[in-house]
Amino acid sequence: MVKVFYVVPLVAVIALGFARYFFLGMKKEHQGSDKMVEIASRVADGAIAYLKQQYKVVGCVFIVIAALLGVLSYGFGMQNKLVPFAFLTAGFFSGFAGFCGMKTATAASSRTAYAASKSLDSALKVAFRSGAVMGLVVVGLALIDYSMWFLLLNKFSANLTGPEKLIWITNTMVTFAMGTSLQALFARVGGGIFTKAADVGADLVGKVETGIPEDDPRNPATIADNVGDNVGDVAGMGADLYESYYGAVLAAAVLGSVAFAKFGWEIQLKAVIAPALLCAVGILASIIGMFFVRAEEGADSLQLLKSLSRGIKVSSIIISLGSLVTLKMLGIPNVIGVWGAVIFGLITGLYIGKATEYFTSEAYKPTKTIAQSSTTGAATVIISGFGTGMLSTSLPVLAVVGGTILSFYCASGFNMENVSMGLYGVGIAAVGMLSTLGITLATDAYGPIADNAGGNAEMSGLSAEVRARTDALDALGNTTAATGKGFAIGSAALTALALIASYMEGIRACFIESGKEFINIGVSRVSVVAIKLSEIMQYYDIHVLNPKVICGMFIGAMLTFVFCGLTTLAVGRAAGKMVTEVRRQFREVTGIMTGESMPDYGRCITIATVAAQREMILPSLIAIISPVIISFVFGVPGVLGLLCGSLSSGFVLALFMSNAGGAWDNAKKYIETGVLGGKYSEAHKAVVVGDTVGDPFKDTAGPSLNILIKLMTIVSIVTVGIAVSHSLL
Amino acid sequence: MVKVFYVVPLVAVIALGFARYFFLGMKKEHQGSDKMVEIASRVADGAIAYLKQQYKVVGCVFIVIAALLGVLSYGFGMQNKLVPFAFLTAGFFSGFAGFCGMKTATAASSRTAYAASKSLDSALKVAFRSGAVMGLVVVGLALIDYSMWFLLLNKFSANLTGPEKLIWITNTMVTFAMGTSLQALFARVGGGIFTKAADVGADLVGKVETGIPEDDPRNPATIADNVGDNVGDVAGMGADLYESYYGAVLAAAVLGSVAFAKFGWEIQLKAVIAPALLCAVGILASIIGMFFVRAEEGADSLQLLKSLSRGIKVSSIIISLGSLVTLKMLGIPNVIGVWGAVIFGLITGLYIGKATEYFTSEAYKPTKTIAQSSTTGAATVIISGFGTGMLSTSLPVLAVVGGTILSFYCASGFNMENVSMGLYGVGIAAVGMLSTLGITLATDAYGPIADNAGGNAEMSGLSAEVRARTDALDALGNTTAATGKGFAIGSAALTALALIASYMEGIRACFIESGKEFINIGVSRVSVVAIKLSEIMQYYDIHVLNPKVICGMFIGAMLTFVFCGLTTLAVGRAAGKMVTEVRRQFREVTGIMTGESMPDYGRCITIATVAAQREMILPSLIAIISPVIISFVFGVPGVLGLLCGSLSSGFVLALFMSNAGGAWDNAKKYIETGVLGGKYSEAHKAVVVGDTVGDPFKDTAGPSLNILIKLMTIVSIVTVGIAVSHSLL
Repeated sequence: MVKVFYVVPLVAVIALGFARYFFLGMKKEHQGSDKMVEIASRVADGAIAYLKQQYKVVGCVFIVIAALLGVLSYGFGMQNKLVPFAFLTAGFFSGFAGFCGMKTATAASSRTAYAASKSLDSALKVAFRSGAVMGLVVVGLALIDYSMWFLLLNKFSANLTGPEKLIWITNTMVTFAMGTSLQALFARVGGGIFTKAADVGADLVGKVETGIPEDDPRNPATIADNVGDNVGDVAGMGADLYESYYGAVLAAAVLGSVAFAKFGWEIQLKAVIAPALLCAVGILASIIGMFFVRAEEGADSLQLLKSLSRGIKVSSIIISLGSLVTLKMLGIPNVIGVWGAVIFGLITGLYIGKATEYFTSEAYKPTKTIAQSSTTGAATVIISGFGTGMLSTSLPVLAVVGGTILSFYCASGFNMENVSMGLYGVGIAAVGMLSTLGITLATDAYGPIADNAGGNAEMSGLSAEVRARTDALDALGNTTAATGKGFAIGSAALTALALIASYMEGIRACFIESGKEFINIGVSRVSVVAIKLSEIMQYYDIHVLNPKVICGMFIGAMLTFVFCGLTTLAVGRAAGKMVTEVRRQFREVTGIMTGESMPDYGRCITIATVAAQREMILPSLIAIISPVIISFVFGVPGVLGLLCGSLSSGFVLALFMSNAGGAWDNAKKYIETGVLGGKYSEAHKAVVVGDTVGDPFKDTAGPSLNILIKLMTIVSIVTVGIAVSHSLL
Repeated sequence: MVKVFYVVPLVAVIALGFARYFFLGMKKEHQGSDKMVEIASRVADGAIAYLKQQYKVVGCVFIVIAALLGVLSYGFGMQNKLVPFAFLTAGFFSGFAGFCGMKTATAASSRTAYAASKSLDSALKVAFRSGAVMGLVVVGLALIDYSMWFLLLNKFSANLTGPEKLIWITNTMVTFAMGTSLQALFARVGGGIFTKAADVGADLVGKVETGIPEDDPRNPATIADNVGDNVGDVAGMGADLYESYYGAVLAAAVLGSVAFAKFGWEIQLKAVIAPALLCAVGILASIIGMFFVRAEEGADSLQLLKSLSRGIKVSSIIISLGSLVTLKMLGIPNVIGVWGAVIFGLITGLYIGKATEYFTSEAYKPTKTIAQSSTTGAATVIISGFGTGMLSTSLPVLAVVGGTILSFYCASGFNMENVSMGLYGVGIAAVGMLSTLGITLATDAYGPIADNAGGNAEMSGLSAEVRARTDALDALGNTTAATGKGFAIGSAALTALALIASYMEGIRACFIESGKEFINIGVSRVSVVAIKLSEIMQYYDIHVLNPKVICGMFIGAMLTFVFCGLTTLAVGRAAGKMVTEVRRQFREVTGIMTGESMPDYGRCITIATVAAQREMILPSLIAIISPVIISFVFGVPGVLGLLCGSLSSGFVLALFMSNAGGAWDNAKKYIETGVLGGKYSEAHKAVVVGDTVGDPFKDTAGPSLNILIKLMTIVSIVTVGIAVSHSLL
């Protein structure tokens, strides 16, 4: 039976093969003029310099935490001595995926710009396939890491037998996600601060004070701004979704191992490997879908959007059918129910994308209303965008609620009592939603490549026709960025939910591992496996009126706001430094405005890098330490309260911040098309304020919340021993 | 034993007596010049006109809902046939309290302005004692309503004996709070929309476009603005705290009746009447404290603040000691533990006030930083205020967490198993926090009176010396407004928590009433009383991984954002209409600017009134209907998830919105003192944007959330029968 599992690493290798194929294909494209190469290499150097600096910091943190985990594993509430090592490999692979994505994206910008001088289709292909490298590297590396450890632990646990074996393996493996979480934390928070410090700084002095256009080479912060797009939207987004993908597969495996334990080892194994097999199907479907992305010459952004959607649609259909076939061939019990969970997960993801588009695209009423409110000034733009962002949370939340409840019911065979089976369904829904990641991440990573290609075309002074093509590609990138964010938040919420469920299973595993007994229930080590989830809940008194649960919930909700506040203020401070530097260069370096001398791009990059590294420390510490403190003070009930509070509040808050930011951005773009006075009108000034406020919302604080809700759960899982055996109250 | 209870209505009558005494004392003061009388009467007429219109709408809603409750009480999940009547009296008393407060406040403004021409102390006395009328009327009427129904139900339930009797009485009474909740909803949402539509409208055209100062009689919206202060901060705040006060006493009584049932009727009764007795002690302490409020001539706002604090401090000390004596004399078991809960409640309230002051006062770093960020424009002011508001949630949440856990532990005798006793402690903590309401509400209501006195002095052209005095009083009012909001939110959270606990007891009462049995547990009607809370929880599977609980939580968190979004956008729309009208008057009515002809103040008031009534419908419906829908679809677990989600998320969101708004307001005031270029500088323009954005945050959306979290719980309690007997899933 384990042999079927070898399909997973095989497909992962295929994914990496195609990534290499797309990468080499892109490298063969012409790089354009010397000027274009020079600009691209400045951005590439800046991005790699940033990444190096970040990985240095991350490396130190990883070593410290691996050491801590090593200490913890000696008796102080850690399940397994392998965790420190797996933590390092997970972190390494996630970081390596980010590196590959950045390398590709920065190499692709000038080539996309050059391809745009030939035709729209070739430019789209270069940009999209370079984005696909990121998508395929993420899913490929994640599955390779997963397969490697699964097979290894299967060997290591030869002494275990029966249902305990897989429960032990999966519960050990879920803690490995800590590595990807931490990598994602730094990539999202650090990258988010970098990109918005550069963007806001460049805009405030360049566009507002000096009146030069976006991406003007005279602006000293313009290269940093372009670097930021890669750092935030390629590396940051990639690490975020890497974590969700890896976490969802692991959580579903944990939930499957428990839910199917009663059917015996063979069937239990099927349930455990099913999530990874579904991902493998998703990868193949994504690769096929990628070849359906192409554009007619002269296509507008709506037609371009359709061509991207075509790829995703093809992939989705293949996954829908492929997953049914796979589950059937695997011979899992309740095939249709589990398949239903896959489908509801998929639909939820697509629906969230659509809902996000409605609330943030200038084609619809909400964003138009925000633009309209600019006639009464900046304050009404802010109020209007704020309100719209809040309303926009409704549809995605209802989608996730619907997806959760339906996948739960399907998988549990419409039997509410069957909680374990139902929760497995929720885990499978998360996997189903993320199974398209290969291609959805490709469309996400495509955005900054197109953006940078536009910047490159602007800075190197390419013809209007070429710029029109890169503009069309860029406009498409803005739409995919907004929907991609919605998808990232939705999948983070579903993954976090599945991870919270596995936290409870972690408690069970803790008892199996230690051989302890549930004191009150008095059951032995072996029969712990047969205990119902609700009995564990009852043992720990985890109902919503336990004051520990309530206090945990309050603190969880509060932490999401504090985390957001810290990252938002960090951007403000970092942007302030950038403004000072850009003003200084304009003042002190003569000849910048006339183009006689070059601004010092490097200094701006350094400032953003240093600020990002410094500012990410406090929010990161809060995210890592608070679950440990709550575990220690309030124990299991407090932790579950904390996780539920931060998940429910953080999910909604993240949606609000991303959508408000996206809507402000597009309200500005809408006015720039010439409506309400167009560029440089009073209305435009008002929406620029909205756009600037929205920058840290949508690109720093909002996305960082995705990480927060997942990371807090992972940290709780890793330190479950503290809550179980060492809590104060 | 019941005889001791007569102290409660007696003290309530004393409170009303003192209210009358203060009212008549204010009426005896000189009204000032004809001009002053005229302005005051315009504001008074506008306020009463608004209130009449609001009470008409509220009256209709009350009749419809009373009829619905009547229908529900015939078999479809309602506990008691008296509910519709009690619903009406509770609504009436709360509305009447608002009317008295408004009548007093509007009559006091010109008298305060005139008294300011004599001395600062006499002006402070007139304003504060007029505010005290509101404080005393609220606590007096609430306790009279409470006493009346308690004594009546005691008669009605003569057929019941043993612990069942008080459980039935208290569970019936807690549903009565629905009347105060609904009144509060309309007062807060409607009043909040009115006041900010007028304020934003007046500022956008008056201050920004036309450049005339605040409260200038040439501005057509200026009277509406002054009316709004009364409508929002007197009637709205009063109804909000009326609901918390009434709800806290009722919830604590419910929790006491269950926790002490095992001790027999006598002791159970003591636990049930203890909350009301504590309130009575609080009223006496408040009245004594009020006489300690006086000011030296030439006092600055810090010294004025001290004189108000002196009153609250004296009251707090009296309550601390008085409550111990009362509980001791009452002979309740675990006196010290219950008393500890009172004290922790009191301290939590005071601490939240201090924390709010730190984050919103221009004397401290956070607000200064926001002011500083104005040098880089409006966008950075918004980002900075936004971040600060988010950080500001930390201390109040930790205070409530500390207060909850400590009062729980104290009251449960440090025994976590003793959940019922512990929850009684949480209820008592809410009562303890609100016991000072007589005097804290007096300081809240003082604010708009001082504000209106300043407006009156400005409009009637009083001397600079008088205006300096009213300015000092007004500045103090701004501080008390911010701390008062913190107190209102904190008490709402604690009250909502106690109400959620009583929801669970409502389920128990449902079973006692119907004589049904818990199907699985199979216990009889009488022994239902002895079932532990955790057993009810287990019966309904209310752990945090039940998908119904999770979905409820997601929806609850989302609803707080949607509700906020709706109210914020409502202000934007209503303000837009006001702007159009004010611009029209300036354009069409000649001679307004030269003072030759009077603007049409009435039209602005009508516009704000109509807009407020129309815009409050949708958010109100959502607040009322969603718990019913969730009860119907997801049953008890869904409702508890909903309530926990909305409480945790709504509490934090309300803190964020109130504090961000307060900080922006004071950052503007700080710059107006001459810092960073002072008034009319670029920095000032930037902070005015912040202030305008903050207006609906702190005076509409934020405070409305207090009501949302309480109202959803009350609606759930009233319709508990639907969740218990008629749920779909």
